[in-house]
Amino acid sequence: MLDQPQVAAKAAIDPENFALANCLRALAIDAVNAANSGHPGAPMGMADAATVLFRKHLKFDASAPDWPDRDRFVLSNGHASMLLYGLLHLTGYADMTIEQIRNFRQWGAITAGHPEWGHAKGVETTTGPLGQGLATAVGMALAERALAAEFPGLVDHRTWVMLGDGCLQEGIGQEAISLAGHLGLGKLNLLYDNNDITIDGPTSVSFSEDVPARLAACGWHVIRCDGHDAEALDRAMTEAKAETGRPTLIAMKTLIGFGSPNRAGTAKAHGAPLGEEEGALAKAALGWEAAPFEIPAELAGTWQAIGARGAEARAEWEDALAASGQAEAFRHRIEGTLPEGYEAAVAEARKALFDAPQTVATRKASQIALERLAAAVPAMIGGSADLTGSNLTRVAAVDSAFTAEAPGRYIGYGVREFGMAAAMNGLALHGGFRPYGGTFLVFSDYARNAIRLSALMGLGVTYVMTHDSIGLGEDGPTHQPVEHLASLRAIPNLDVFRPADAVETLEAWDIALHRPATPALLALSRQGVPQLREAGAENLTARGAYVIRSFGARRDVTLLATGTEVALAVEAAEALHAEGHGVAVVSMPCWTLFDAQPEAYQAEVLGDAPRIAVEAASAFGWTRYVAREADVVGMPGFGASAPAERLYAEFGITAEAVAARARARIAG
Amino acid sequence: MLDQPQVAAKAAIDPENFALANCLRALAIDAVNAANSGHPGAPMGMADAATVLFRKHLKFDASAPDWPDRDRFVLSNGHASMLLYGLLHLTGYADMTIEQIRNFRQWGAITAGHPEWGHAKGVETTTGPLGQGLATAVGMALAERALAAEFPGLVDHRTWVMLGDGCLQEGIGQEAISLAGHLGLGKLNLLYDNNDITIDGPTSVSFSEDVPARLAACGWHVIRCDGHDAEALDRAMTEAKAETGRPTLIAMKTLIGFGSPNRAGTAKAHGAPLGEEEGALAKAALGWEAAPFEIPAELAGTWQAIGARGAEARAEWEDALAASGQAEAFRHRIEGTLPEGYEAAVAEARKALFDAPQTVATRKASQIALERLAAAVPAMIGGSADLTGSNLTRVAAVDSAFTAEAPGRYIGYGVREFGMAAAMNGLALHGGFRPYGGTFLVFSDYARNAIRLSALMGLGVTYVMTHDSIGLGEDGPTHQPVEHLASLRAIPNLDVFRPADAVETLEAWDIALHRPATPALLALSRQGVPQLREAGAENLTARGAYVIRSFGARRDVTLLATGTEVALAVEAAEALHAEGHGVAVVSMPCWTLFDAQPEAYQAEVLGDAPRIAVEAASAFGWTRYVAREADVVGMPGFGASAPAERLYAEFGITAEAVAARARARIAG
Repeated sequence: MLDQPQVAAKAAIDPENFALANCLRALAIDAVNAANSGHPGAPMGMADAATVLFRKHLKFDASAPDWPDRDRFVLSNGHASMLLYGLLHLTGYADMTIEQIRNFRQWGAITAGHPEWGHAKGVETTTGPLGQGLATAVGMALAERALAAEFPGLVDHRTWVMLGDGCLQEGIGQEAISLAGHLGLGKLNLLYDNNDITIDGPTSVSFSEDVPARLAACGWHVIRCDGHDAEALDRAMTEAKAETGRPTLIAMKTLIGFGSPNRAGTAKAHGAPLGEEEGALAKAALGWEAAPFEIPAELAGTWQAIGARGAEARAEWEDALAASGQAEAFRHRIEGTLPEGYEAAVAEARKALFDAPQTVATRKASQIALERLAAAVPAMIGGSADLTGSNLTRVAAVDSAFTAEAPGRYIGYGVREFGMAAAMNGLALHGGFRPYGGTFLVFSDYARNAIRLSALMGLGVTYVMTHDSIGLGEDGPTHQPVEHLASLRAIPNLDVFRPADAVETLEAWDIALHRPATPALLALSRQGVPQLREAGAENLTARGAYVIRSFGARRDVTLLATGTEVALAVEAAEALHAEGHGVAVVSMPCWTLFDAQPEAYQAEVLGDAPRIAVEAASAFGWTRYVAREADVVGMPGFGASAPAERLYAEFGITAEAVAARARARIAG
Repeated sequence: MLDQPQVAAKAAIDPENFALANCLRALAIDAVNAANSGHPGAPMGMADAATVLFRKHLKFDASAPDWPDRDRFVLSNGHASMLLYGLLHLTGYADMTIEQIRNFRQWGAITAGHPEWGHAKGVETTTGPLGQGLATAVGMALAERALAAEFPGLVDHRTWVMLGDGCLQEGIGQEAISLAGHLGLGKLNLLYDNNDITIDGPTSVSFSEDVPARLAACGWHVIRCDGHDAEALDRAMTEAKAETGRPTLIAMKTLIGFGSPNRAGTAKAHGAPLGEEEGALAKAALGWEAAPFEIPAELAGTWQAIGARGAEARAEWEDALAASGQAEAFRHRIEGTLPEGYEAAVAEARKALFDAPQTVATRKASQIALERLAAAVPAMIGGSADLTGSNLTRVAAVDSAFTAEAPGRYIGYGVREFGMAAAMNGLALHGGFRPYGGTFLVFSDYARNAIRLSALMGLGVTYVMTHDSIGLGEDGPTHQPVEHLASLRAIPNLDVFRPADAVETLEAWDIALHRPATPALLALSRQGVPQLREAGAENLTARGAYVIRSFGARRDVTLLATGTEVALAVEAAEALHAEGHGVAVVSMPCWTLFDAQPEAYQAEVLGDAPRIAVEAASAFGWTRYVAREADVVGMPGFGASAPAERLYAEFGITAEAVAARARARIAG
């Protein structure tokens, strides 16, 4: 229960801040009530802090949401979305009209249940999956630091994150905290909504750690303050901005549902509307008299002025940009255009492969491609989750470590796959970068929800996932992906590539760089493969699938394969051809691109003859192209620990097995 | 570089311990060299500590690896597998012969690259995916505490975990640490191999936090010691055992590759064989003169005696068990047999549904089923990742919170999906429990690699995943699973259930409990569905798929559906039947079970008529049962934020759409 004197005492500290914050609280109450779904408690509890932040500290200009040097504001506890929508509406973001607020959580509105990047201006990233906002913000702070070094005087902004207990309970939160502390991201500030309430009740049900002490152990600057004391909040934010060498945590003691007489401080305020009655009681307790969705003119005016606070700074920045001599280069970076010379670099890389074919693992082929591409594309920033020597993600052009002392083009993410993926999302969202990062394909599991967010947001992030099958050998089933290709192919808007050789690997990289709104995942081999492609100017991987070998004038059977199994399919085809059969071998490096081809092309590639597929993975999903799963030579279950060749033989993924399956199908 | 005096100084502290530890080091050098793959450095660095642990503290009896009251030893940094295999061999586990050690990482050997549960006795869990060994150990410690309360005097053992930096960098490590600290798991002890080296080089590349301070902030008892000082290690372990209210971290400063003159203390010792030359130099430095794979008789004898250390304690325990009057009950619990009265409880639950059909969300149906099943099965232990009120996982029988003060049957896992899943694996591995835990289906992503390990190990864990489609409505695309059913169906040995009504939900639970070697995942709805099943004694869900409605004598079309879409398919079928078409509606709650049915049954259910499938999810994988993806009424991309009914209408997942698609197929 919240008693009236408590509200009054907080209000008295800074009455204007309190009144402005009440606008946010009222909108949250009204919108959640209107939607009859949503989370009023967190916006009500964080309104005072958000008001101080927007009113006095955040560098932004509501009339120019895309100003590259704006501070980034990330609402990591995305269920508090009405706080963000309220802020955007009140400060005057053009698209965030009161109609949008009234249509909170309704079809077609930009006010989704959780903030969705690309819907409303001012939403810097999609949040809701807990912990990821924070980890994405780490990527934004990395981007700021790296870009500032490249464009001195043009980049100097902070990243502010609001988050709750959930983000700190999620493991990814700790990955982000640890990395940010390690890299001394002094311009990253967290505002922790420490309200002691979680969905299941008081946080004491499951959470009793000393969060500030934990972050201090990870190298953070820590401040504790009352989250409803505007003066204390102002001091804390000022102090945070003064700290340059360490990220800052402002642990704010708050009351969830602040103002609601009967629900404040309880789990009931968390995820359900207050309803008419309690909403009215809350407004009365706050001294709020306006009608639903209405903001008194004076307060509205003050908020509009807050939204324009940064206009001057922005104008100065525009002048600085114009005077910098770097304007064009900077804009190209922010817009993500590939630099002049890029296509030539690809052509040279291609020619080099044709001149001297490479029998290498596709992970090595990726490194060969990266050598030229990363040199041609300064926006590329690499890294690995502590598997650099295995993923082969480090090349000369990015061979400068990102450290606490100086930004670099290579980020040692540590054994933090999920944190890496979310940070890459942040690097892409910030603008100026095309991030890529490596781990083993099997550990895509750890990063999976961030990969999903790359796809949902449509970000130009490239995942370099090596050791892509039982072909990795002795490390055994815990390290051998089986279901991963299928499970990743099922994600909408994700290009999953499994290139067959060095040429396809180069082509996959080229496509990834040309598609900034579609994340790419490269599944690459540990073991070597011959270079099957010998000439030709067309990027055939862009077709998704194509006939890579054809034996005989007619087609008795079509062999479909990806990655390391394409060479094996060719071997099987040669054997079948020697027996008099006509065989086409189709390499299918990317299903989504193939499915986007004209139907006639698809029909021509797939042909009318029976089809056999081979891929050292689960057959799941292959029935898109073959008649039944029995026509897939693949993995029936998990792998085993043994040298790779032995595993292929034991699991029956061999040219002989493919040929035998084909023979049986040809025979009918 | 390791200088000789340093080795000598460590050796002098406890020469016997040093000599015994050298047996482990020598075996690690030899086995990794023989396999020409593996990780020698960590076993060499942790050998001294492991020797102290097995020699003086670990409660075990090598002749009885399944002794229920043994201490559990978990090697969370599973790549150090040769340490574990060496320990098991030297202490006399019957199956861990020297031939197995010689065949390290080879086909058919029980000495897989990473420890695989079920291969060798003494391997308490599969490890390798970092952080999970620790999180699984938390589950074991939970199990110990809960079982001790039920069987006083019969259960009193500790859980020891060895781990490296990687486990502490992974987010799941922090989830486990936070939960263990919160619950005061005083019998959980970590031995942290703090060797300052990671694959990419010194840990300072990516990791600079104060780990002991972090754990202290999470409520842990913390000890720092020299990991090569046998006396200090002994004191630390003694101190750890004396602490009962908090878990203990022993942070051991170690040298990776201890003994290797040229590689100790470097990343080169981590993941590659030392080779003949450096192996010989290391042995020389350690004073080791035996031939490869040979252990001097005296040391071998001492190790055998260590393996028999616990024989007396075990004999006493057996006597105590016999005298307890609980012997039979205890054995049933450990063996996992369903109790007497279980089948009657299922029958009653079934009858109750037939007597009073329930139009409820399947998550509610799950709660209804759980009310009776959890009451009948004392081994069931529930929980949720902070979504109890949404997952509906808490019922009367388990309505006792597991706290630091007292064990209970309901675990508040906090917002820690991955940690929850791994802890459930630990509960199942320990024996005595059938754990289940809830979150939203979309957040199966966060837990995914632990779900995979449930399947890889074959554990009786049940995942209660609610809010299983766009039917959850306003929370929007971040919360709406689309690709998740497909991606989970692709995991081998995982039963994915999507029940259509209250009866199928009960049946799914019943199957899950009857299949202790196959984890089950229940995808359950937020929104209500009618009860379609009205009578019958057979568990039809066990068939995986079955004809739930048939309209007309002949079959012109078959409609396949799962979950909430089965009712919609029935509606479509009624419309088609009214137009004169014969229609069968097939409910497919579990694909794996259907695929395991006799072919004749499958053919009969699927029929020869054209098939249309409907599922509010990605069509990926459905071509296993339909001719092409165009025959699936599903989700083409991500969802949106709006009320559920609106979403179904906007995305075209309606009875009308199903009927229209069917009409087109019937027409040819």
